[in-house]
Amino acid sequence: MGGGTVTSPQGFHAGATSAGIRKKAELSLDLGILFSEAPCAVAGVLTTSRIKSAPVMLCQERLARGQGMAIVANSGCANAYTGKQGLADACEMAKAAAFALGIDADDVFVASTGVTGKPLPLDIIKDGIRKIALSPDGGHEMARAIMTTDTVPKETAVNVRKDSVTFTIGGIAKGSGMIHPDMATMLAFLTTDAAVEPLFLRGALKRAADVSFNMVSVDGDTSPSDTVLLMANGLAKNEPISERSAIADIFERALTEVCVYLTKAIARDGEGATRLIEVKVEGAATVVDARLAARTIAGSSLVKAAVYGGDPNWGRIVAAAARSGAKIIESSLDLNIGKIGVLRSGNTLAFREADVAEVFKGSEVLVRLNLNLGTGSATAWGCDLTPEYVNINSQYMT
Amino acid sequence: MGGGTVTSPQGFHAGATSAGIRKKAELSLDLGILFSEAPCAVAGVLTTSRIKSAPVMLCQERLARGQGMAIVANSGCANAYTGKQGLADACEMAKAAAFALGIDADDVFVASTGVTGKPLPLDIIKDGIRKIALSPDGGHEMARAIMTTDTVPKETAVNVRKDSVTFTIGGIAKGSGMIHPDMATMLAFLTTDAAVEPLFLRGALKRAADVSFNMVSVDGDTSPSDTVLLMANGLAKNEPISERSAIADIFERALTEVCVYLTKAIARDGEGATRLIEVKVEGAATVVDARLAARTIAGSSLVKAAVYGGDPNWGRIVAAAARSGAKIIESSLDLNIGKIGVLRSGNTLAFREADVAEVFKGSEVLVRLNLNLGTGSATAWGCDLTPEYVNINSQYMT
Repeated sequence: MGGGTVTSPQGFHAGATSAGIRKKAELSLDLGILFSEAPCAVAGVLTTSRIKSAPVMLCQERLARGQGMAIVANSGCANAYTGKQGLADACEMAKAAAFALGIDADDVFVASTGVTGKPLPLDIIKDGIRKIALSPDGGHEMARAIMTTDTVPKETAVNVRKDSVTFTIGGIAKGSGMIHPDMATMLAFLTTDAAVEPLFLRGALKRAADVSFNMVSVDGDTSPSDTVLLMANGLAKNEPISERSAIADIFERALTEVCVYLTKAIARDGEGATRLIEVKVEGAATVVDARLAARTIAGSSLVKAAVYGGDPNWGRIVAAAARSGAKIIESSLDLNIGKIGVLRSGNTLAFREADVAEVFKGSEVLVRLNLNLGTGSATAWGCDLTPEYVNINSQYMT
Repeated sequence: MGGGTVTSPQGFHAGATSAGIRKKAELSLDLGILFSEAPCAVAGVLTTSRIKSAPVMLCQERLARGQGMAIVANSGCANAYTGKQGLADACEMAKAAAFALGIDADDVFVASTGVTGKPLPLDIIKDGIRKIALSPDGGHEMARAIMTTDTVPKETAVNVRKDSVTFTIGGIAKGSGMIHPDMATMLAFLTTDAAVEPLFLRGALKRAADVSFNMVSVDGDTSPSDTVLLMANGLAKNEPISERSAIADIFERALTEVCVYLTKAIARDGEGATRLIEVKVEGAATVVDARLAARTIAGSSLVKAAVYGGDPNWGRIVAAAARSGAKIIESSLDLNIGKIGVLRSGNTLAFREADVAEVFKGSEVLVRLNLNLGTGSATAWGCDLTPEYVNINSQYMT
């Protein structure tokens, strides 16, 4: 995994340009288009924030119909907290892309990330859209165009072959941070040439996002702009995949693999992060409890700071689980940090703190907590909390 | 306010010693006793964490009875995640204090703060208890004995005179951090010489804590050790205050004033903090919504980092409110930062970003958000997020 990108599946083209939405326009791509030759079934997962950005509201409308052919996305301005004007601007952006592509505006999805509370620079965006040249190798450019304080583009693809069916799933994502630092907006665009029934496409994306994008935390804040879109254009010519298809599981596993890959890439590249933290909670009374506990541990400032400093303060992991709301009994807890056994049935094992510190200093830190109360399990991802995170988020670059 | 301490009410004595529980024992007090000449009605508010420290479990038992005469407290070791041995140790600590004071062990409450997962050094504590000399001026020493990474002791008292009734309410608290950095355990011990009916005492403390200690966030983590205790010894000889007393409101207001004073002191002295953030949410559909929104804004890492850096990124305040779960409508929002109007009915006002940055650079930053949906209001307190917070919490001092 890791070689491909969002244009790896058949019939997807992409391109990007330095439109000048960001201040340092010459240096970086900030506007991109992803286009499918053939009409797609489209599924999406959008922010849970009660106030949604204009592009998210537009996507919400488009997703009700569940069809589309293109995504136009920019960084540098989120078009959030911009009221009615913002919604009109997002529609205009879709129209401009549709005109350039020769398709219907209803078939264009929009995503914006960047500073909030500022109007979208529509003229700059319209000019930029005209300049974009699409190519079947353009996925990488598109991945770069949606970056904000990301330090690396995030992209991957998997090929699936099962009996006579062959298809590809590709994806790109951006994570945490902005050039105008604002909030850790997450965007992910996923594509496949598999033919997939819309109902199953929605369900599979929802389930895949629940164990990937919905289990990552950089700083606990939720953006008004979070958007995951999945386009399936059917060019693989397979029998459309539904819940009952023999390959339904294979499709969903591959989709989940792509989502988890991108999620880990987002966590690893969190603002200021030096380490990926993976938290597996097992033996919870319910899956909901497992998710709660795993996310709370991965999101705890104190756990994150301890990992950053290589501080073997394992009590913080227990404390985070204990405040998460999940059912938890001290005398049932097994805790492992990397390969080091720390607790068995709530009793501290004989281990060297220096060994735990050593695990915390690795580039991937695995925490496993077994609550021994049931069969619920979940994995969450996060990153360490560093002084650099504070630096990035305390400077308004004007 | 600010002059008095926990021994300001009649009949309370306190003292502390450097027992040697912390590594740098000679330098700092780490064990203290607060004692009332007369038996007290005692009310308490304890951590909501599902795993409670041994002292909290002991306090829970004692509070069911609602009577007591003393509190023995230490810093340097939290006696948390220590299982049955921990509970036995907490009982022994209460017994040792009871023996030294010549009272019943059931009348002694225990509180411990410091590193978790380590056994209580009981011999050192017993030796220390024998060395403590009590005095009616000892409140300040007691306030210092419970400090961990606190940089200043937190203490206050108010005198109340109404018609023929005169009484005093005093208090001390510790906030965020530990010498062995662990978690932001909060301890607060409150005293009054007013005679108060136990039922009203409990209710008044619960309500006062809900608008003070339960509205402060340093880093979102909850300690297994959080403890607030209120002792009322009746030496003011007033008619015992009940819900129906003419002075019930006056007592509760004074108690709330003491709690809010200590809460603000905790927020201002949060680990690494340079600024106090006060968030007032008004016009919420319900008080629950107002509390949710206020706490989420005050606890947002992005808001806290923006305040630290003097970054006028007001969108982060709206984003935090919008993810809090409180009902919120973009077109209804009024936002003020200090005296600067930022939003009216969701529209950005004409203001200079430099003026907002100036407010963020003050020692107290006031954020007022009116949701204009109802009459619910609440105030929360927090502090800025600084690189120093990360430094404090990433180093394990061995």
